[in-house]
Formats: sequence, structure tokens, C-alpha cells
Amino acid sequence: MIERKDAMQRVRLAHTRSLLDELRRAGPLSRAELVQRTGLSRTTLFDIIADLLARNVVVEREPVVEGQRGRGRPSSAVSLNPAAGQIVGIDLGRARINAVVANVGHDILAGGSRKVAASAAPSRRAAAAIALVEELVERHGVDLSTLEAVGLGLPGLVRDPGRPDGSHGLTTAARRTVDRFREHFGAPVVADNNSHLAALAEATWGAAQDSGNVVYVRWSDGVGGGLIVDGRPVRGAHGAAGELGHVSLDPHGEPCPCGGRGCLELRIRTSALIAECTARGEPVEEVAGLLDRAAAGAAIPAAVVRDAAGLLGHVIAGTVVQLDPSRVVIGGDLGRLGDLVLDPVRQAIRRLAIPRHPRRLEVVAARLGDDDGALGAVAAVLRHGAPDPQLAPPGAAGGPGRPGSRG
Amino acid sequence: MIERKDAMQRVRLAHTRSLLDELRRAGPLSRAELVQRTGLSRTTLFDIIADLLARNVVVEREPVVEGQRGRGRPSSAVSLNPAAGQIVGIDLGRARINAVVANVGHDILAGGSRKVAASAAPSRRAAAAIALVEELVERHGVDLSTLEAVGLGLPGLVRDPGRPDGSHGLTTAARRTVDRFREHFGAPVVADNNSHLAALAEATWGAAQDSGNVVYVRWSDGVGGGLIVDGRPVRGAHGAAGELGHVSLDPHGEPCPCGGRGCLELRIRTSALIAECTARGEPVEEVAGLLDRAAAGAAIPAAVVRDAAGLLGHVIAGTVVQLDPSRVVIGGDLGRLGDLVLDPVRQAIRRLAIPRHPRRLEVVAARLGDDDGALGAVAAVLRHGAPDPQLAPPGAAGGPGRPGSRG
Repeated sequence: MIERKDAMQRVRLAHTRSLLDELRRAGPLSRAELVQRTGLSRTTLFDIIADLLARNVVVEREPVVEGQRGRGRPSSAVSLNPAAGQIVGIDLGRARINAVVANVGHDILAGGSRKVAASAAPSRRAAAAIALVEELVERHGVDLSTLEAVGLGLPGLVRDPGRPDGSHGLTTAARRTVDRFREHFGAPVVADNNSHLAALAEATWGAAQDSGNVVYVRWSDGVGGGLIVDGRPVRGAHGAAGELGHVSLDPHGEPCPCGGRGCLELRIRTSALIAECTARGEPVEEVAGLLDRAAAGAAIPAAVVRDAAGLLGHVIAGTVVQLDPSRVVIGGDLGRLGDLVLDPVRQAIRRLAIPRHPRRLEVVAARLGDDDGALGAVAAVLRHGAPDPQLAPPGAAGGPGRPGSRG
Repeated sequence: MIERKDAMQRVRLAHTRSLLDELRRAGPLSRAELVQRTGLSRTTLFDIIADLLARNVVVEREPVVEGQRGRGRPSSAVSLNPAAGQIVGIDLGRARINAVVANVGHDILAGGSRKVAASAAPSRRAAAAIALVEELVERHGVDLSTLEAVGLGLPGLVRDPGRPDGSHGLTTAARRTVDRFREHFGAPVVADNNSHLAALAEATWGAAQDSGNVVYVRWSDGVGGGLIVDGRPVRGAHGAAGELGHVSLDPHGEPCPCGGRGCLELRIRTSALIAECTARGEPVEEVAGLLDRAAAGAAIPAAVVRDAAGLLGHVIAGTVVQLDPSRVVIGGDLGRLGDLVLDPVRQAIRRLAIPRHPRRLEVVAARLGDDDGALGAVAAVLRHGAPDPQLAPPGAAGGPGRPGSRG
């Protein structure tokens, strides 16, 4: 008898977990959406939800309109109890730190940014990020008493690619930064490359929400990227996937700081575009000047951007041929120029990526702003395992979550 | 009470399925390996195996030596009952048809090949493949009375990339061929591109067995490929992933039959290498002559192959930067040349794929022979859902399996 009861409870727990996982990853959902996503029967699902509502693990949210075309009648959505856990997302970018505070119900409670000198030491950058979060928490009156975890985006290589498949160990520099945040916040820290995180944010809340196969490029002074295959972010065997900026256009080209030669990034990073404008006789003031002049249709800056977008398109066409995505998303400073950048990429794909394959492939601009990396850091925490609802009832002074236990 | 019993049975069934799935995918395994792969406790696992042995769903196989270094003591392996189902794997290549007959216990019962004219009509090629399978079955006395499914490898595009995410509909030509085989064999047919299938075969039985992130290239007259990310074959949003041969080396290069320009395949397909040998003053006789002369170290053919491998290496370096695999496998006719081909690829990756990332990446030759596509067709069937053991007891004249019911 005891064994039978155990078995029943295990099935019920498995169903409950799959429902809670959906709510963590996707945010508030109607019961109809939950039926579709979990594959559970209405009876089972409604029964589990009633139980979770009674235990305050989930809550009803304000009505949302069901259906993509707004034809359905409003129905209430179910959400994880927002009080159950807060998440801090930080993007420790080279020139700017972004931070957001969110909760497990997908509410963004606060957000802001702060400039840092590109030359600032890692410890100073970490201190600035901590000060920014404290300021946000204070200003918006956020309660971090059930802080679940901190998501942390870092530029460059976060995991050590010298390690074998699956170990995904952090680099020494990343580990030091992670330790600093863990000590300060007293919560687990989930760290990843900030371009990977921006890709995840676009897939969760932005331009790639409904697409399972995505190539994301973050084009600013660096050229980073993130790939999503069959709904899952691609990390690679050593955590070093997605570096579109270091695809070599010319094996005999100029040396790149990465150690390679002729990398795409050398040709299209914003500093190279600014230099190119000067070389063609129309100097621009920094990145803002380049973007403003190109957006205004000034002949030389616009041509420089178009030519660079064509090179990016050449590389992306190779990616399309190999990964066959349904969506290409261009983010970063340059993504904001819209069709000026998107059209040359579309054209390169049409010309080069097996034109006989009439793929349904959209090339779109990213939808999120400068906080994409910080939002992605929150999404990364939400993708990791939730604290067990039986172990840590919401509102209780339970331990922090257990990110890293899955994924 | 009834509900509780149902719940118990569901848990037991789920465990049984995960065990049977492992045996289908990986072949005979020791109990220790099964404990590791399924995550089930020894007690649960041994109990389920005893039940399955009693019901003849699985059988004990001859002792295998446990452990990679052969230090363990021999222990018997458990296998799906080989009598439970046969699988026919066919690779309908452009110049040669390969076929194998296997069973769900991973025994290869028969195999052979037959040349076909590249100009032969699809219906003649299908007829030749069917005749080949019948000859093999007759010669080796194979009983196909519980034929589960036919796996079918086809060159080129098998799925229609004009369709949206997830539909994976076959092209009209592929559908006609599939229908022909289904009618003849009276069994479901699983079809895919033969390079994708060769990649799957190498991951199941060959050079990429223990690697979750693999770039596979099949280099013969065409240059195809297959990608494996986190243990799963990459199909792409429209089933058109892995076409490394159509990465463009030069956006202004010569037109390719695919509609693109400057594709890698135009530069390194065997026919181009043969022409290049002639142009450099040392004509070779067909592919066999090229391979023999290059393997023998003849200066010009070897240099032509090395140069071509360098171009392939340039493209693969870009793939490595984006996907971060732990293994690159080179198959096809050229893969057989070993280091003559592998070394320039290794060198290009070392020079171009972010040399500051000290990745543990092996570049190796494929281990399987000409039957890799046919073996991959068998592996594709084994990766699809098994017939429910409760619905179709082995040995009974049950219906065929249900490939396609899972993805």
C-alpha cells in the first residue's frame, strides 16, 4: 500500500513539476495554454492548479486575451506566486553595466544602467554593479528577502574551453567575479556569456519568442552571437559556441586578438566602421554619430554600414546553410538601424544560402533594448531548476533556489 | 484503488520504456551500464529486467568485457530480443545503392551494395534497391516476418524547406520513393538525407560514439554533412541543416547548381580535384586513381588533396567557432586518406578557430565504410519510438513499429 501511494505521488509530482517549469520559463499562461504546453488532461491540470492555488504556490493574474488575433474571450492567467522568489539579472558589459530585478512571476520590478570605463578593473566593475542593484532595490522598494539567484552576463569567454565535454567549468576570471556576487548576495550565481544571454532573452520575451531555431547576432563594437536549436540554447562541448564574430572571412587576413586571422569582427566592429567613414572622407563622432548619420541617410556612413552588413550576411548565410534556422535576429547597436542593416543580410542569404531551397526564414531586428543581457540573465535562472515547491514553500524563509541542478 | 494501481503501472511503464529506449539506441548493454544510463536504482532495474526476460522482450547476450581498458570482469549484456523486429536500411546514393538488414538487438544480419548509373530514373533505382534487399534476404536466410520499418537514405534535399517549423514534410520526389518502399515492404518508411544518416551511424557505431557535439562531413563527389548538438541530430527548422558543402567561400565566385555562388563543394568535389590534377600536369584515372595516387604520395595529386582539405578546414573552422564541437569526423571517399586530409583541417582549425581558446577538439576519420548511410538508416529507425511492448509482444504477428510517433 505504501509503495502504491508513493507511486501515485511520484506521478503527481512529475506533473506538478512540468507545470511549474512551464510557468517559470514562459511566465503567466492561461489554463488553455497550459493544457497545450504540458500535454496534461484538463481534469488533471485543473486539479493540480486548484491544489497549487490553495497552497499559494501559484496565483491568478489579471485577465489576458487569449489567441494571437485577439478574438478569444479574456481568461485569467495562472502565474507562479511572484512573492516566491526574486531574481537579479546583471550584464557586466565592457562599457556599460545593466541590471534588472524580476520575480518568478516574470514581473520586472526595477531596471537601470551605469557607464563604466572599459579600462576599469574587474573588482571595480563588480562593485559598481552591486551599487547599481542596491540603488535600484532602494529606489523601487523591492523586497529581496527571498532572492532565488543572481544571473550574471559577462563579455567574452565565461567557460573554460580547455575542459572536456559537459564539465563547463568557469574560467578563473569568471569564477572570481561569480564568487564576489555570491558572497555579496548570499545566493547562487548563474553566469554565461552576455551575447548568449541576450539570445535567450530574445527567445523568451523578444523577437524570437515563437521560433525554435534561431541565429542571434549582437552587433556592437564586438560581434557576438547565440544559437538556439530545437528550442534549446547551444552551448557547445566547452561552452564556447556562438562566436559568429570570429568566423574568418580570409584565412590570410589580418591577425585578430583572438589569435585567428581575417575575423568578421575586425571588419565590422563599430570602431572599424568609424575608421572607414574617416577613410572615405566623412568622419563621424563616435558610435552615436555613426548610427545617427547612417540612420539619417548620409551617403558615406550608410554605405559603410551596408557594406559591413553584407559581410555579416555572408557569414550568416553560411550559418543558415548549416543550421537551417527559421529566424535570424540582429541586435546590438547596429540592429537598431533596422532595414539598413537587415536588407543586406537578407540579400546575402537569398544569394548564397542555397537559393533553390525556398526557406521560410525571417531576418528581423532584436526587440529588446540595452537590458537584453540582464534580462537574459534572469531568463537563464528561470530555465534552471526551480526550488522544489515541497521543500521551499513560497513566502517561507526557505533556502535559495538550486540553479545549476539541471540544464 | 484502481486509480492507485494505474499510477503505479504508469511509473513502471515509464521506467520500462526508458530502459527499452536505451537498448534500442545503444544496443546490448551490461546491467551496470544500464544503471548509469537510465538513472534507475539497481533494485528497480534488475526487477524490470527480470520481468522483461521472463516475457522474452529482452534476452541475455554472450559476455562482453566491461570498461574501456578491458580490466573489468566479463559480465553478460542485456539486449532487446533480436527476434522482435528486423530493420532494413537502404542508402539510395547517386552512384551506388547500399543495403543492410539488421534487428532490434543491433545485429547486422546481411549487407551489400550495387552500382547504379547516376542517370537512372528514380523508379529504376528503387527497383534495384528492392532487388538487392531480396537477394540479401535470400542469400543470408533472413526472416523478415516481423519487419519493423525501413530506413531510407536519399541524396540531396529530402524534406521540403518551404514548410514552416516542425512540419518536416517530404519533398514530392522523396514522397514518391517512400511510397514505393512502403508498398513493397508493407512497413513504415523513415527517410532522411543520407549524409545526416551517415552522421547518425558514426555517432551510434563509429568515430563519434562517445561525443555529444559532432561535426560530420561526408566528402566524396558531393560534400554533405550532419551536425550533432548535445547528443541530438540537428535537422533545422525545415529539415535542411548540415549542408557544409554549400557554405560560400566567395560571394562573387562561380555559380553553383544550388543557386548560390562560390560554394565549397564546387572547389573540392572529387570531379574538381581530378580536373585540377590534369590542370597541374598529372592526370589521374577517376576517383580511384586520385585516391590511390594521393595515398601513394604522388606530389601533384597529394598537393591537390591537401589544398582542398585546407579549404574544407577553413569552412569547418567557422563551424567550430559557432558550434564548439568536441569532435570533427571526416567521412566519404576522401576521409579514407587519413592524415593527408585530416592534417590540413586540423591546421586550419588551429589557425582560425579562436586559437586563444584551447579547445579539446579531435579531428578524426570516419570509422564506417560505404554502408554508413544504410547503417544510419537503421539507426534512424532505432531512434524513433519502439512499438509498445505491451501492444506488440515479440514473436507475435503484431503490427509493424510506429516510427514517426516520436521525434
